[in-house]
Parts: sequence; structure tokens; C-alpha cells
Amino acid sequence: MSADDKTSTEDKLIARFFAPLATHPGALGLSDDAAFIKPPPGCELVLKADAIVGGVHFFNDDPAHAIASKALRVNLSDLAAKGATPLGFLVSLALPKDIGEAWLKSFADGLREDAATYKCPLFGGDTVRTPGPVMVSVSMFGSVPEGMMVRRAGAKPGDKVFVTGTIGDAALGVKVRQGAAWPLSDAQREHLLSRYLLPRPRSALAETVRHYASASMDVSDGLVGDFAKLCRVSGVAADIDVARVPLSDAARAVLSADASARETALTGGDDYEILCTVPPSKVDRFRVAAMAAKVAVTEIGTIGEGEGVRFLGEDAKPLVFAHGAFSHF
Amino acid sequence: MSADDKTSTEDKLIARFFAPLATHPGALGLSDDAAFIKPPPGCELVLKADAIVGGVHFFNDDPAHAIASKALRVNLSDLAAKGATPLGFLVSLALPKDIGEAWLKSFADGLREDAATYKCPLFGGDTVRTPGPVMVSVSMFGSVPEGMMVRRAGAKPGDKVFVTGTIGDAALGVKVRQGAAWPLSDAQREHLLSRYLLPRPRSALAETVRHYASASMDVSDGLVGDFAKLCRVSGVAADIDVARVPLSDAARAVLSADASARETALTGGDDYEILCTVPPSKVDRFRVAAMAAKVAVTEIGTIGEGEGVRFLGEDAKPLVFAHGAFSHF
Repeated sequence: MSADDKTSTEDKLIARFFAPLATHPGALGLSDDAAFIKPPPGCELVLKADAIVGGVHFFNDDPAHAIASKALRVNLSDLAAKGATPLGFLVSLALPKDIGEAWLKSFADGLREDAATYKCPLFGGDTVRTPGPVMVSVSMFGSVPEGMMVRRAGAKPGDKVFVTGTIGDAALGVKVRQGAAWPLSDAQREHLLSRYLLPRPRSALAETVRHYASASMDVSDGLVGDFAKLCRVSGVAADIDVARVPLSDAARAVLSADASARETALTGGDDYEILCTVPPSKVDRFRVAAMAAKVAVTEIGTIGEGEGVRFLGEDAKPLVFAHGAFSHF
Repeated sequence: MSADDKTSTEDKLIARFFAPLATHPGALGLSDDAAFIKPPPGCELVLKADAIVGGVHFFNDDPAHAIASKALRVNLSDLAAKGATPLGFLVSLALPKDIGEAWLKSFADGLREDAATYKCPLFGGDTVRTPGPVMVSVSMFGSVPEGMMVRRAGAKPGDKVFVTGTIGDAALGVKVRQGAAWPLSDAQREHLLSRYLLPRPRSALAETVRHYASASMDVSDGLVGDFAKLCRVSGVAADIDVARVPLSDAARAVLSADASARETALTGGDDYEILCTVPPSKVDRFRVAAMAAKVAVTEIGTIGEGEGVRFLGEDAKPLVFAHGAFSHF
């Protein structure tokens, strides 16, 4: 709160680490107070902000480049689920005083690599000191043809429920990180840990979702809780066949050793998979397009009339979960 | 980092405190993962992100509604300086565990009032727990006619330098808050304190800036340091007549009691005034338009060729400052 001669510190930091990521002309090389952008013709912007905090959304000793990637990817995941193409992002970075150059270089490397991979350049932001842990707030904007953002509301009775990839890996990965003693191979452990460390947004499926899904969201707070939200806002009910929920080999290994881990997998969150509903008439085309996009999709249930979501176990009886969903809050 | 049954906590908090601020149809009442917006025809979006942290940008015991207002206004100030009209904002709010409902209600009241005043509704965001202090990250987007965002780069030799309002009040207000024993009336103390607590973005001047300014930025890190940045990126030099820098009665009272406070006023920051340059041929129209917008503007110097900014004292000799500019970093 006192005046001191550090302007040049932030300016140099921005010039050295962040300006090289500002590749869009509207970012003005981060030399201005703001940036500008125009959505492509016939398109509108999709807007999303999601922040991650040390000790809450990542471990404080995670590699800085992975923290940067996670901050971008949790937002990229939302854009993909909405059927949007990334255009760019703003970042507010709160740093403890003892963060060194090596950390910053690694962080900027992570941002740069993902910005390039996902074609989502930096448009601006700011860097502030905090007496607390690292916090990375990303605001991301993408584009969709006007009126085409795929919403949570929109599921209709008869629609089929699909999910990408596999569910539960990241939530089980947190437990492994915290010392859970499950009998896993090194590769299985590594799979679960890496799924927590680095979300894999299903950006390749965005266009397919936009063309064929009636409702869509990404799974960040757990399949059970997130799907309940989708059904609630769509005004529908649903049955999910738990046996069909896609699991990785590693997750299967955990579940055969520890049946109680099933609830962690289904409610634990940090999946960053796409959960969407597809009208029966479009299911075949959806599957073909997903295959062309090289994203695995699995049908796990059907939308019905009424309200409430049932997760049916192998005896076709609804499961009851102690915890509805993971919350970072 | 553990799963618990708090999804509904965040959902209820959003529904109760924040959904009522999401008045734009593209915000979908905060019931979705993302929002959408289309800039007005012929316009592009101006993007800005600025975060504030407890103990760094505000005092932790500041009223929550003032913290909310400050978080919006530091961004509104940037948009105004860029000649942009606010369209909306996203907010990431990091809260300590012991924040209660009264604080949240006050915070939401502050956001709502300013969102209404500045016609800048909430489009989304997220709420996260932090073991650190409150942090409010706002990303704001506004619109300008395509290609018309006013940049820092653009000042030309011969242009006149203008600043809105008065300079130094907030920086002196921080000192008062911290116990500086200057001989001030209650009204003067209150003026300085309130200027720190609540920035007053010059949104009313945005259109005038857009029409007449060759370069523009807001003063957030102190007049001296910020103007040096504007000149550097414009590739010009300048002379500022310190005697013409507009001061409030309260600031004048401080400076007559304590000459050393002049440096605080000129370099301390948190002014959130607009600093712009105007070509000589447009100065008259600029003044008339500013008067019509009811924003005081003062000519304080002239742009020249070369590089370097001189702040000339009453003897016409350049002042030397111990600290170039305030930095929150």
C-alpha cells in the first residue's frame, strides 16, 4: 500500500514473459491499457471466467507450467462444451512476493504452449501481489455462429445422454496424490495423477456439439451434480446406467480394489469432459462426427419427462450418494 | 481439496446475490456455464482485466460495497480512457472462509448499484475459496466503432496534454488513512479518503476522448509514471507544467503544510482520471465537448519531439522524483 519504485518490475515482467504471447494484433503487444477484438462475421462472442487458487484447485508445489495450463484448460473446456471456438483470453495473476523468475518463466511457458495449441492468444490482464497463495483468473472469449451457443437448458425427453473420454480419473488422482494406497501399476498411478494435473479439454468436439447436441456442459464438479444441474435447468428427468459410465483402466483397477471409490469417481469433479444430450434422430451423425474428431463418446442414459436424475446400479436400483457433487467453493 | 456437499452453497449464493445483476439476455441469468454477446453493428469489443487484492489495493476493513465498486470502477476507468462504452463484465471472486452473508450482501449491492449506474451488467464469473485475502478479478468488455479504440500510442509533437478532475487525492487519502497528521478540515480529510475508497471513472468523457484525443490512458499508477509510458509508446517527449496540474482544495491544503507531499500527489497513483493528448486543431472542440459532458479538463503541458518527459517546477526547472511511479505489484 506504499509507493515504491517497482513499476518497471511489472513492466519488465510483462515485456519479458507475457508480451510474446500476445500474438493477436488487437492485443497491441500488451503495450496499451486494453485490447480490442471483433467476432468473425455472423458470429457472437461466448464469455467465460474461471479462476484457480493454490491449495484449492491445484497443489502449491505443482509445476508452474501445469498451473498455467490448468487455468487455461478449465476455461477451454467450457468453451468446447458450449460449441465455441476459442479466440483469446485475459489473465489476472496474483503472486506471492517470493515467486521467482524460474516459476514465472515456467508459468509463461505453460501459457504459451497452450495458447498456441488451442489457438487462443493472450489479450491482456494484470499481475498483482498477494499475501495469499497464487491465484490465476482467466477470462476467455470464443465465437459461435450467432444464436448457436449450446446451453445447459435444451435437453428433451427421449434425448440420449453422452459423455466424452472417461469419468473420475482426476478425482481419483487427487486421492492418489494425497496418499491413497490402492494397488495400481506405475502407469495407472501416473494416468490418474496426470488427469488431475492437466485437464484435457475436448476442444476437438466443439463443432460436433454445436451441430448435434440439444444441451451441453462440461463436467467440472462431478458427473452426478453437474448432470443434475443440466436436467434441472432443462426441466427434464433422466436415468443414467452407471455400468455404462466410461472408466479408464486405472479407475477400474481402483474400483475393483475399493468399491467406495465409485462415489468419488462419479461425484468428485475435475473431469473436464463434455456431457451432452443428443436427439435420437441425430445420434448416428453425432457418433460419426465424434469419431472423425477423434474424441471418444459414450452413451450413458436417456432423458425422460418429469424431474430428478437416477443413477442406476447393476441391479437397476438408483444409487444414493452421500455427497451430491464436488465444490471448490 | 476434499469432496464435500457444498455445491448448493455456491449455487444458492449465485442465485441469491449475483443472478439479479445478470440483466442482459446473453447472461442467461447465470444459469449456464458461459454467456454470449454481440457487439453493436459496426463496433468491436474493447477488453480489459484488472484485479484488486485485500491489503494491496484496498484495506481489508473497507466496506464490501466499496470494494465491489472499486473493482468495477478501475476497469470502467480504463474503458472510458479508451473511448469505449461499457457492455458488461465477468467477475472472479476469491473469498476467505469466514466471509459472512452480510459482507456478501453488501458486496452484491455495490456491484448492482454500479452495474446500473454505468449500464454495465454482470455476464458471469465464479466464486472460489481462498486461504488468502479477498481478491476480486474483473474482466470488462465495452464497445467502440471499429478501429476507434483510443490508444496510448498516438501522441504527436504539438499536441496538448489534458487531464480530467484532480490529481493526487487518492494517494494523499491513503496517507491520511495511514495516520498522516496534516492540518485538514473534516471535509478535506473526507474528500481525500473518499477519493481513495471510491474511484470516479470519467465514463462521461469517453465519447469526447474518442472524437478528439490522439492518445489516452487512465492515471492509475501516478501521473508521472503513466504519462512517461504514454510518451514512450508514442515515441515523443513532453513538458508538463506542474503548477497547472489540477489539485483539489484538500490536496492544496496538504501541499502547503508539507511540500514533500507533492511527490506523493504526482506519483502516488489511484487517480483514475483520464490523461490524454489533443491535437491543437481539436482543442477548442475538445473543451466544449468536455464541458457539455460535465467533466473538468485541464491543459497541463505540450508534446514535443524526441524522448523524455519533464515535469517543470515553478522555476521552470525539471523536478526529480525519488520514485517514478506507484506500483501495486
